[in-house]
Amino acid sequence: MTVTYTLDVSKSQFSSFSKLLLRWRGSLWKTVYKELICWLCLYATLTCIYRFLLNAHQRKTFEDIAGLCFKYTDFIPLTFILGFFVSLVVNRWWDMFNNIGWIDNTALYVAAYIQGSNDDVRMIRRNIIRYLVVVQTMVFRDISPPIRLRYPTMNSLQEAGLLNEAEMIAFDGVESHHAKYWLPIHWAMVLIYQAREREYMISDGMVMDLYNRLREYRTGLATLCCYDWVPVPLAYTQVVFLTVRCYFLIALMGRQYVSTKRDIQVHSAVDLYFPLITVIQFLFYMGWMKVAEALLNPFGADADDFEVNYILDRNLQVGINIVDDAAGSLPKQEKDSFWF
Amino acid sequence: MTVTYTLDVSKSQFSSFSKLLLRWRGSLWKTVYKELICWLCLYATLTCIYRFLLNAHQRKTFEDIAGLCFKYTDFIPLTFILGFFVSLVVNRWWDMFNNIGWIDNTALYVAAYIQGSNDDVRMIRRNIIRYLVVVQTMVFRDISPPIRLRYPTMNSLQEAGLLNEAEMIAFDGVESHHAKYWLPIHWAMVLIYQAREREYMISDGMVMDLYNRLREYRTGLATLCCYDWVPVPLAYTQVVFLTVRCYFLIALMGRQYVSTKRDIQVHSAVDLYFPLITVIQFLFYMGWMKVAEALLNPFGADADDFEVNYILDRNLQVGINIVDDAAGSLPKQEKDSFWF
Amino acid sequence: MTVTYTLDVSKSQFSSFSKLLLRWRGSLWKTVYKELICWLCLYATLTCIYRFLLNAHQRKTFEDIAGLCFKYTDFIPLTFILGFFVSLVVNRWWDMFNNIGWIDNTALYVAAYIQGSNDDVRMIRRNIIRYLVVVQTMVFRDISPPIRLRYPTMNSLQEAGLLNEAEMIAFDGVESHHAKYWLPIHWAMVLIYQAREREYMISDGMVMDLYNRLREYRTGLATLCCYDWVPVPLAYTQVVFLTVRCYFLIALMGRQYVSTKRDIQVHSAVDLYFPLITVIQFLFYMGWMKVAEALLNPFGADADDFEVNYILDRNLQVGINIVDDAAGSLPKQEKDSFWF
Amino acid sequence: MTVTYTLDVSKSQFSSFSKLLLRWRGSLWKTVYKELICWLCLYATLTCIYRFLLNAHQRKTFEDIAGLCFKYTDFIPLTFILGFFVSLVVNRWWDMFNNIGWIDNTALYVAAYIQGSNDDVRMIRRNIIRYLVVVQTMVFRDISPPIRLRYPTMNSLQEAGLLNEAEMIAFDGVESHHAKYWLPIHWAMVLIYQAREREYMISDGMVMDLYNRLREYRTGLATLCCYDWVPVPLAYTQVVFLTVRCYFLIALMGRQYVSTKRDIQVHSAVDLYFPLITVIQFLFYMGWMKVAEALLNPFGADADDFEVNYILDRNLQVGINIVDDAAGSLPKQEKDSFWF
Amino acid sequence: MTVTYTLDVSKSQFSSFSKLLLRWRGSLWKTVYKELICWLCLYATLTCIYRFLLNAHQRKTFEDIAGLCFKYTDFIPLTFILGFFVSLVVNRWWDMFNNIGWIDNTALYVAAYIQGSNDDVRMIRRNIIRYLVVVQTMVFRDISPPIRLRYPTMNSLQEAGLLNEAEMIAFDGVESHHAKYWLPIHWAMVLIYQAREREYMISDGMVMDLYNRLREYRTGLATLCCYDWVPVPLAYTQVVFLTVRCYFLIALMGRQYVSTKRDIQVHSAVDLYFPLITVIQFLFYMGWMKVAEALLNPFGADADDFEVNYILDRNLQVGINIVDDAAGSLPKQEKDSFWF
Repeated sequence: MTVTYTLDVSKSQFSSFSKLLLRWRGSLWKTVYKELICWLCLYATLTCIYRFLLNAHQRKTFEDIAGLCFKYTDFIPLTFILGFFVSLVVNRWWDMFNNIGWIDNTALYVAAYIQGSNDDVRMIRRNIIRYLVVVQTMVFRDISPPIRLRYPTMNSLQEAGLLNEAEMIAFDGVESHHAKYWLPIHWAMVLIYQAREREYMISDGMVMDLYNRLREYRTGLATLCCYDWVPVPLAYTQVVFLTVRCYFLIALMGRQYVSTKRDIQVHSAVDLYFPLITVIQFLFYMGWMKVAEALLNPFGADADDFEVNYILDRNLQVGINIVDDAAGSLPKQEKDSFWF
Repeated sequence: MTVTYTLDVSKSQFSSFSKLLLRWRGSLWKTVYKELICWLCLYATLTCIYRFLLNAHQRKTFEDIAGLCFKYTDFIPLTFILGFFVSLVVNRWWDMFNNIGWIDNTALYVAAYIQGSNDDVRMIRRNIIRYLVVVQTMVFRDISPPIRLRYPTMNSLQEAGLLNEAEMIAFDGVESHHAKYWLPIHWAMVLIYQAREREYMISDGMVMDLYNRLREYRTGLATLCCYDWVPVPLAYTQVVFLTVRCYFLIALMGRQYVSTKRDIQVHSAVDLYFPLITVIQFLFYMGWMKVAEALLNPFGADADDFEVNYILDRNLQVGINIVDDAAGSLPKQEKDSFWF
Repeated sequence: MTVTYTLDVSKSQFSSFSKLLLRWRGSLWKTVYKELICWLCLYATLTCIYRFLLNAHQRKTFEDIAGLCFKYTDFIPLTFILGFFVSLVVNRWWDMFNNIGWIDNTALYVAAYIQGSNDDVRMIRRNIIRYLVVVQTMVFRDISPPIRLRYPTMNSLQEAGLLNEAEMIAFDGVESHHAKYWLPIHWAMVLIYQAREREYMISDGMVMDLYNRLREYRTGLATLCCYDWVPVPLAYTQVVFLTVRCYFLIALMGRQYVSTKRDIQVHSAVDLYFPLITVIQFLFYMGWMKVAEALLNPFGADADDFEVNYILDRNLQVGINIVDDAAGSLPKQEKDSFWF
Repeated sequence: MTVTYTLDVSKSQFSSFSKLLLRWRGSLWKTVYKELICWLCLYATLTCIYRFLLNAHQRKTFEDIAGLCFKYTDFIPLTFILGFFVSLVVNRWWDMFNNIGWIDNTALYVAAYIQGSNDDVRMIRRNIIRYLVVVQTMVFRDISPPIRLRYPTMNSLQEAGLLNEAEMIAFDGVESHHAKYWLPIHWAMVLIYQAREREYMISDGMVMDLYNRLREYRTGLATLCCYDWVPVPLAYTQVVFLTVRCYFLIALMGRQYVSTKRDIQVHSAVDLYFPLITVIQFLFYMGWMKVAEALLNPFGADADDFEVNYILDRNLQVGINIVDDAAGSLPKQEKDSFWF
Repeated sequence: MTVTYTLDVSKSQFSSFSKLLLRWRGSLWKTVYKELICWLCLYATLTCIYRFLLNAHQRKTFEDIAGLCFKYTDFIPLTFILGFFVSLVVNRWWDMFNNIGWIDNTALYVAAYIQGSNDDVRMIRRNIIRYLVVVQTMVFRDISPPIRLRYPTMNSLQEAGLLNEAEMIAFDGVESHHAKYWLPIHWAMVLIYQAREREYMISDGMVMDLYNRLREYRTGLATLCCYDWVPVPLAYTQVVFLTVRCYFLIALMGRQYVSTKRDIQVHSAVDLYFPLITVIQFLFYMGWMKVAEALLNPFGADADDFEVNYILDRNLQVGINIVDDAAGSLPKQEKDSFWF
């Protein structure tokens, strides 16, 4: 589900900042707490081993390794690679969102161009909308696990009332090895053409204009499929995810407090017991990486993922609302209150 | 309110720089002064504790902790994360501004295409504009606290004269669980269709062209809703805001002047009393972050936020101006002064 | 005035580099020389004070402060903040330039669609162009000081022959609290409609196509107003400009040569008298910042600002050229020389 | 072949991370393992030479060189140049993908606009699709080695049934020194014009609309050719690829463990035998660079390259499906299940 | 000439990397070898002076200066400024390339819309193409030295057969202080209008559609002029180019091997004679900067510049090919081989 917090930040104040921090759903805390606890446990284990189990010679080796690890964390430039990677992922994520397919424009045009109130024309208008929702459902089934769960087979669309039997048969009748996203779009186009032939539309130009709305809608959904088919190159994702984890594995040793008198870099004059700074770093880097991880596939079930189920339901309801309930209605026109 | 300072920088001079710095509204100073004062108080308290209250042993511990903090501020790469985050936020902010919905294009087209000067056609033209302002008000009510304050309920739109009673009833008559932004747009489209049927427009193409203007306007507003609904992922925002604050919490200790003879990193040969450099850093990083904080929701009440009230009023007035007062008027055509 | 140096770099050679460096107008040198001289004077004063006026104890304090300043310049990450800020400013600057409003496309369409050679049709064509230039002048008056200087009042447009008396009266006759940029556009649209009614145009589609050209032109100018109205958030600009100046204020002390035997970081074995490296840094950072400063408002009077006066004059002359002098003319058609 | 891993990351969990890491095809591991093994062999050789073959004096020199190399790897800022370069390459790669040319939109329009079911009209529809696939094949032949392999000559297109003999002759009949990508597009346009003349299409506007679809398709393919013709400037690519390799060549020496008592920077207190951190760096930098290398020409045969063969086949099959099998068919229209 | 190396990188392999490195035309090597040799000579001279000419005291000063220079090269952040600058320049370069003006789309539309095969209509079609190439040649003359060389005056266009005498006279007959790029476009538009009047075109919509193609073509060329007129601000370019050169001037001293026993930073335990790392840096930074230098004006004569002569010739030949040789031709239509 999408996490909306815009109201919290409508004023840039200290209180708005605290409200922001105290949220749980979709928050940094929820995102990293499990891995942070694991890390702290491992860290504590190493600390205990060092303090209670090792003899002097072993401690010396431990300290040397810690020194080495401390020095080498500098060699891993997390910030830049995360910066560039998150930029890329955020751009893709937002572009996906922009192509998610809202039905409003098409429905408004259908309601405006296809005139009439008999059952035949109402059926045409409603079915166009329904076909558009069907194609969106089909696409979402293939890219979003929650929708796949909701509609495990094409028949579940029929059960849900999105397709009737004749349409199901016609759908299965087209032989193709490839996804048949185009078929409901084609039906909608044929319906529009029929509406013109039956004189529900007054000009050929309007047919073409409606086709353009359908095309925009379809192209958006096709873009979603492309984003799903061709993700960020795997090796790039692996490089980033691996590097962040390696950094903190090395930091397990490198950030240990060592109580030596020898002059090694890791030596610190004060024993904090708790690696406060490293925990802040952990929150920071892990949180940043988790953002990227969640946005990589925004059609999943993470807290920040798009509410695809909601979108499907809304599209159907609002679409039907527009083309059927409201189509052609207009309140009585009166002079407005600023008339003079 | 928007802070415009473009005239100050029309010439790149030293004086223009000073004028820029001395502004208060929307400035860096106004934005950070409260938190800077808090920080300085805390810093002074710590300084006093160190200098007047602690005994030698405690001072040594204080110095060690300060040394640790000094060293560890290096581990927090504020610059990059702020750079990438501000880039993202500024892009979103500007894109929102571009979709804010100016009525001029639509109004000019309405005035040009819908010809006539009787009351019926005037009413059509004026009501189209009014409906467009209504949908904008509805959207702004949901994303902007100041507008929500101005129009707490849909009925306040009626009271303000934006909707009449018949329209209010028709509006409430449409049952839907979802926002009914589309309804006034639909009415405007029906009105345009009527204008064509009543021969106020001379061609079907013009109907379609007007619909396209309406669509652009509506799509812009829909984009605003999307930006409001799907903000920058919460965890990302938290990471950035938290990191900047942690940095300065740690700097409270790390930038203390310690008058020790021991060779620790934080030791400085000269006692400045006032942490000048850290204050500059504070202005710099906090100011930068505050920019991001203010731009996250530009429909709020910060100094840099869009003047949404002004935009609504202007759209109504200018729209009515164009489609009613000026529509069809043209000064007597004469040969221009360059004619030869 | 725009500084064009493209020909100098048509070939990537050493000589082209020197030619580039030796330019003065719009150059780095011209942009920073005043502030560099100031800085060098202050630096020299400090140097003299240190070398000739201070006693041993004071010199020690001076050296300590210098050491502190030297160390702390590292804390100010100029490069990144300048990099991100300049990126933002350059993008805005170029987008402004793209929306500056060239009349060619519209004029070519006017000449092509509105056919005829009698005075009436010529007047229509010429006046459309004139109205477009008028609206551009009105916009430029509000965003560009040089144009404001040239046309201090709306009446100066009449004096310059851009508006005649009837138009001036009509213009003043429309009551509005807001800028009336839309009025000349509206007149042009009415004129086009008239041209269609008087059969100078052969199809309604052409009217709509011309309206689209006008819309693009108007939208570009509206975008300029938006850029002027909503600049880069003030706090961001202040952060950047202040930080760069603070850096060099601190460097005044931090880069002093100190002839101490004590082991402090700022100590350098050789006395250069002239802070060569810091001057290079000054050129570099100040120059970079000055670029941003000049581009913030490209409608001012800096060397790199757009030549708005030229654009206005050119638009009028070329527009009239196209729609009046050349309209409808065509050299005798012959077979070309590659005919076979 | 494209490597799709989107489902693995539908939920941001620890298990999804491990699944991601354990993939082989298109993975970081597959991409760098060869060069990593080479590097490790060289490293081991140097280690052995140092430990077993050199005398004391030679070891001292070895250690000095290692110290120098260690120090100098800092001078090579791999991260930034890789960051900027990969950004550029990824943008180009994604833009190429967006222009790859899906036939769906055009086919849907052909099916909707060109009405009829006799053999003549079916042939027109099918041949338009075929010509579009032909031009795509011709373009891919020139930019993609796998397609060049599949269709070594233009005659192989005839053999594959994409062109018949008459078309082949017509194709060879046009004399031109330049690629004749435009010819099949021209044929398709003539076919559409014929369809209008034979009254299979009901309006001229539809002809124009179809031409626009063809133009978008053609422009996409032309963009692919441009990307192939004008790659990232060679010197830029060389700079990046060379720098990464030099870095690791220098690291061969600089990261050797040296067991000296002398105080040189490279000295490390603990002998790890295996250069763990450097191997992590190797994975990181090499993997990042390999991503860029693979994306530079995404029409090659790398794991992450576009599946061009699949796209060609799919376009033909789906195109024919749409314009022939499904064209004009529509399941019996019934009231939907939400009707009330 | 453009340097295409896409085939070399169709597979990401070690061999492809070596092939890439061994290229000469447009390569890193060719681009920097002259300046590298200069630099090495200066470096060697300094080395010789230090080793053979200086006495002990002078050597000490030399070493101190070297130490200072070594330390100060750190203060010049080449990487970031180059990264941001190259990003900007590459974006501008690619946008220029996208607006370079291919004639194919327009020619295909001309061939499709203007029907007929008598000499009159052929002349119209051919002359439209010719006029488009003329305007491109005129623009290229003003922005590209090689084309200026090929066509030193407007009369050279007549000599080359691009304009005939009547057109030349008409061209010179239009008085204007500004570039007359619009004139041939205007002629083409008038020709299209004539074609409609003479019934070679069947609908007004097609006239408008053709005008839109012409407008896109013209707007692209106008964009090129704008890029030429308003380059990257001079001061920005100077900052970057100067900084890189300063860096290596300072490195001349800072990277000298000094054989001192004193503990100064520049001291290195091993005498390499050849400054290997600095040469790698030189290749890296200079190469990167040279890329920017070459892309600043891609219409020059560098190896990576666009092949403008080729584009002009190609546009004329392919344009004539399309509108004359192939126009209206269509191979005999047959059922395709997948028919069933």
